[in-house]
Amino acid sequence: MNAFGRLFRVHVFGESHGASVGVNIDGVPAGLPLTVEDFLPDLERRKGGARGTTPRKEEDLPHLKSGVFNDHTTGAPITILFENNNTRSADYEKLRAFPRPGHADFVATEKFGGYEDYRGGGHFSGRLTLNLVAAGVIAKKLLGDTIHVTARITEVGGIADAAAGLEAAIAAKDSVGGIVECTVDGLPIGLGEPFFDSVESLIAHAVFAIPAVKGIEFGAGFAAAKMKGLEHNDAIIDASGKTATNNAGGIVGGITNGNPLVFRIAVKPTSSTPKEQNTLNIKSGEVETFSVKGRHDLCIALRVPVVLEAVTAMVLADLLLQVQRIPRIWK
Amino acid sequence: MNAFGRLFRVHVFGESHGASVGVNIDGVPAGLPLTVEDFLPDLERRKGGARGTTPRKEEDLPHLKSGVFNDHTTGAPITILFENNNTRSADYEKLRAFPRPGHADFVATEKFGGYEDYRGGGHFSGRLTLNLVAAGVIAKKLLGDTIHVTARITEVGGIADAAAGLEAAIAAKDSVGGIVECTVDGLPIGLGEPFFDSVESLIAHAVFAIPAVKGIEFGAGFAAAKMKGLEHNDAIIDASGKTATNNAGGIVGGITNGNPLVFRIAVKPTSSTPKEQNTLNIKSGEVETFSVKGRHDLCIALRVPVVLEAVTAMVLADLLLQVQRIPRIWK
Amino acid sequence: MNAFGRLFRVHVFGESHGASVGVNIDGVPAGLPLTVEDFLPDLERRKGGARGTTPRKEEDLPHLKSGVFNDHTTGAPITILFENNNTRSADYEKLRAFPRPGHADFVATEKFGGYEDYRGGGHFSGRLTLNLVAAGVIAKKLLGDTIHVTARITEVGGIADAAAGLEAAIAAKDSVGGIVECTVDGLPIGLGEPFFDSVESLIAHAVFAIPAVKGIEFGAGFAAAKMKGLEHNDAIIDASGKTATNNAGGIVGGITNGNPLVFRIAVKPTSSTPKEQNTLNIKSGEVETFSVKGRHDLCIALRVPVVLEAVTAMVLADLLLQVQRIPRIWK
Amino acid sequence: MNAFGRLFRVHVFGESHGASVGVNIDGVPAGLPLTVEDFLPDLERRKGGARGTTPRKEEDLPHLKSGVFNDHTTGAPITILFENNNTRSADYEKLRAFPRPGHADFVATEKFGGYEDYRGGGHFSGRLTLNLVAAGVIAKKLLGDTIHVTARITEVGGIADAAAGLEAAIAAKDSVGGIVECTVDGLPIGLGEPFFDSVESLIAHAVFAIPAVKGIEFGAGFAAAKMKGLEHNDAIIDASGKTATNNAGGIVGGITNGNPLVFRIAVKPTSSTPKEQNTLNIKSGEVETFSVKGRHDLCIALRVPVVLEAVTAMVLADLLLQVQRIPRIWK
Repeated sequence: MNAFGRLFRVHVFGESHGASVGVNIDGVPAGLPLTVEDFLPDLERRKGGARGTTPRKEEDLPHLKSGVFNDHTTGAPITILFENNNTRSADYEKLRAFPRPGHADFVATEKFGGYEDYRGGGHFSGRLTLNLVAAGVIAKKLLGDTIHVTARITEVGGIADAAAGLEAAIAAKDSVGGIVECTVDGLPIGLGEPFFDSVESLIAHAVFAIPAVKGIEFGAGFAAAKMKGLEHNDAIIDASGKTATNNAGGIVGGITNGNPLVFRIAVKPTSSTPKEQNTLNIKSGEVETFSVKGRHDLCIALRVPVVLEAVTAMVLADLLLQVQRIPRIWK
Repeated sequence: MNAFGRLFRVHVFGESHGASVGVNIDGVPAGLPLTVEDFLPDLERRKGGARGTTPRKEEDLPHLKSGVFNDHTTGAPITILFENNNTRSADYEKLRAFPRPGHADFVATEKFGGYEDYRGGGHFSGRLTLNLVAAGVIAKKLLGDTIHVTARITEVGGIADAAAGLEAAIAAKDSVGGIVECTVDGLPIGLGEPFFDSVESLIAHAVFAIPAVKGIEFGAGFAAAKMKGLEHNDAIIDASGKTATNNAGGIVGGITNGNPLVFRIAVKPTSSTPKEQNTLNIKSGEVETFSVKGRHDLCIALRVPVVLEAVTAMVLADLLLQVQRIPRIWK
Repeated sequence: MNAFGRLFRVHVFGESHGASVGVNIDGVPAGLPLTVEDFLPDLERRKGGARGTTPRKEEDLPHLKSGVFNDHTTGAPITILFENNNTRSADYEKLRAFPRPGHADFVATEKFGGYEDYRGGGHFSGRLTLNLVAAGVIAKKLLGDTIHVTARITEVGGIADAAAGLEAAIAAKDSVGGIVECTVDGLPIGLGEPFFDSVESLIAHAVFAIPAVKGIEFGAGFAAAKMKGLEHNDAIIDASGKTATNNAGGIVGGITNGNPLVFRIAVKPTSSTPKEQNTLNIKSGEVETFSVKGRHDLCIALRVPVVLEAVTAMVLADLLLQVQRIPRIWK
Repeated sequence: MNAFGRLFRVHVFGESHGASVGVNIDGVPAGLPLTVEDFLPDLERRKGGARGTTPRKEEDLPHLKSGVFNDHTTGAPITILFENNNTRSADYEKLRAFPRPGHADFVATEKFGGYEDYRGGGHFSGRLTLNLVAAGVIAKKLLGDTIHVTARITEVGGIADAAAGLEAAIAAKDSVGGIVECTVDGLPIGLGEPFFDSVESLIAHAVFAIPAVKGIEFGAGFAAAKMKGLEHNDAIIDASGKTATNNAGGIVGGITNGNPLVFRIAVKPTSSTPKEQNTLNIKSGEVETFSVKGRHDLCIALRVPVVLEAVTAMVLADLLLQVQRIPRIWK
């Protein structure tokens, strides 16, 4: 299934080099102002073109195919379509013999019996993060003026200065990974549930839907494993629940505690490195050297922040609907 | 909601000091041999009593209340109940003025309006991991003889030798966190889906249902963020999909690739440290010093491996059912 | 799966002659007053013992195993257990060669490979309607003082006077079917959605979970198929949405329109008729004559009204939660 | 939510006079041959144009926007779009003061606060049954060569001869209702579950998603309520489960029993009757006489059979996937 959410429910579809990619969002309250222009800033942030990102000029214009009328949501499911125009499928045809390391080529063929659309990663493509960003735009609107979701790169290739990290990668002519941190201010106390609907469970679920993410940690995260209890515990210091420290990252018992929600994710290096690589030639049955051609990001992590904000906002909008903090008719 | 899974669906319920804790498991194929004895080894592994774990002698005997007949599953939902007998609720009554740092006391009262069962953590209690372990026993049986899920402590309080880490904590009279690693051998290629049903999404979702988990990483995980593409990419070396390295932790594009599934989780220090702590006295409105009395684990991570195996097996059993690798009538 | 509901979610389990039957209800707001006594009137209504119903004295005492504390709901999942004590399994052992017409014996063996608990219908038993009634008690409380769900027998064996219909069946020494009508007053406008979440879809889904139900019709129902548009259309006559007639049964476009919700269900005759019947002897392979012994209702429809109210209340409580007409903390 | 299904999951979207209507179908196995041509026969059957149906020439060409590659399904979600070109929205603007009896106008405004797309019924429009038919085409393919779903009109306006019934309506210048019967041959034993996943529950749920349906009955249905047990029970006569009669309509205990699945639905008269009607003028606050203009079917039931087949096939495909009778890679 390609869907997520209980009351704010997002379904993604599409292929990199097929007719389109798109998203269907169900459960959006009626009356929310919404126009194509609302999507453009976040879609722009996601776009390639900057140094270290792909020069592919994508047609990223969202087409609102349902659920919007007179520039407001109607309460019916919203469908947003992005047409695919600027594709060079021939690039991929000749690569079929070489299942690209780090990509889904090999597993997709096993799983779908060779019927998968293999061009440009097909349904596995990072191009489908357009859908997540679009859903996130709506989710962010539902969060209102007091809740802010902000993600930023904190490390590229192990270097805290992202620009320097990227330069090092360019110099090395290899792709690199990175760390992205997300912070949410203004959340009420009480979102989430113990166990399977913990905020950590839901955010982690959504975050690992972003291609290339390989780790997530909340608050002190992995560092917490090395800490003592007295050091890690966040003392509550006032009746609003404010804590002296925030090692919990704003979540206790799976539930938001009114302090900033803080988490970090690890993004692996772009699998399509410019370097020559070894992999199996499935036709010859031999391990051979090959190169990924095409247009690729050197550091995909650079394009992740806006996607990370989007999936985080999706989870939070759903939880806010569940605790009735977002009305069913927008005011 | 307190449920998880699409075809192998687990619902947990109960409170630490209420009548019982229990679990309802729907979707188990008919004909699987199942007796009370099957549960005892994993329940024993989870139990307190060892050095650094709680001396509370819990009544951990599973009562099979439905779904089992003539020592086999029937195809109907299975309910397993654990009665609570050995509780000292009075310990908690006097603590109500002090919402314990790291615990859900404060957020639960906000979320449930003071109606929550606050005794011993109530529905948030680690005692409910009994339910997860019980569900995991059934899930492991469904994985069969060729798939093995193994979790082990790799670090206590920052020390790779778990025993030494625990001794350091005992000496410091403080609780400590730890790292648990899980490995799964024998998985077929093709479990999981891109995006929201990625194996990482599903496992992370389930894993963060375990109290005290604050981070998860797959394969190279956070280290991947510091790597270059050529270093991180796992070259495919034969037609079975075997890779030269396993930085991906056995998952590419959200889908198992036939190599061992490997991930690690960070467990925070037990919130109930023996140390004196500061927290708000909600009656006086002042920050005061208090101590958590009662019987607690110094390092809860030590009890996590069997729980981690359980939730991992739950996810995998569900995915194997989805790709029809587990039959609906067990043979 | 044995569950239903989005925000008010009910899971049933158990077998007629196993250890117990029970129900787990997730999504109940915290703070709702709830004691064992609340269940007794509706459980009493469901009970056998009256003329035409089974003389089996069931132990129908609900055990609240989780989710209730200090006589209020806690917001955690509620588990209610009914132990099975008064069972005569031997009655059923000898019948195994004869899959009873109208019962699930034959299909259960095919579906579950012979592993099903066949005693007294096992998991298919009408005894599991105890679970529905118990869930309905909680649902009705959530509907509050202004919404009333009332079901009543309108026909037994084709006779509008239920008592006369029953007497006719007793005289004929055969079981009979019946019609039950349900009316709900006081519903707000706007519950339900077009298409898959129409009120008709959800109620019909829940209603066919009651064993022996074979038809449902809303408002004019099947009579509508014979009507002309002008006759069938309900003219709106005031700003509250009140209509001159109620052929729609209170639902237009899948959504409640503020008029009474009205629907009827057809209940088939009890399959366990006292008459001799023909069926396959699966051991001999011949069609043979046999009799169902044991204790059975002559007209199961007589026990259905309280079950019908229960599943209707379940659906409505869920829908009211979805439109935020029931608060997450009960007041 | 506008979705249905567990493993074969259908999401509908769109508005009658908006940009488009469409459907997203998740869970379709990879490798199923699928082209635009496959949809045309059933879409043609649904189309208006025959006597008694709307003369509106709709653009009913399906656009396959995702999930299909090289004329086969890929295993990724399939999106099918129908553009709306031939709309006369002005017809509806002037009607806004008169919430049409039988239509969702009034409830939609209450539910969605006036933000709904009111043109031509908006998201409530029967035009969205295009989506159901399209999903049904795929579902029918999955049912294969041995399972046949056939629906036909059995009554128009109370007359068994549909043509005569329609002529009577034309003569009376009023719309009429009808009965549609659906039969499915070739089903295996064992689809469905007791209680909430009974075949009756699932089919009824799906069927009431079709606008204008007000009743459903399986097998003998409402007539069963007037029958005695001996008369109603279907004696099993051979080891394949074949029964002497089929009053159960092929379902016992919620589960298919290998006999033909048979059910009937009641379709109300088209709400848009040519007759003058009374309704509230919401501007004047008075009940006034008005006429529905526009292009409408006199007997919508005539267009329902193909839609009924579609939703039935959807349910069955899902259940067949659940019991692993449809492979995950089509062969």
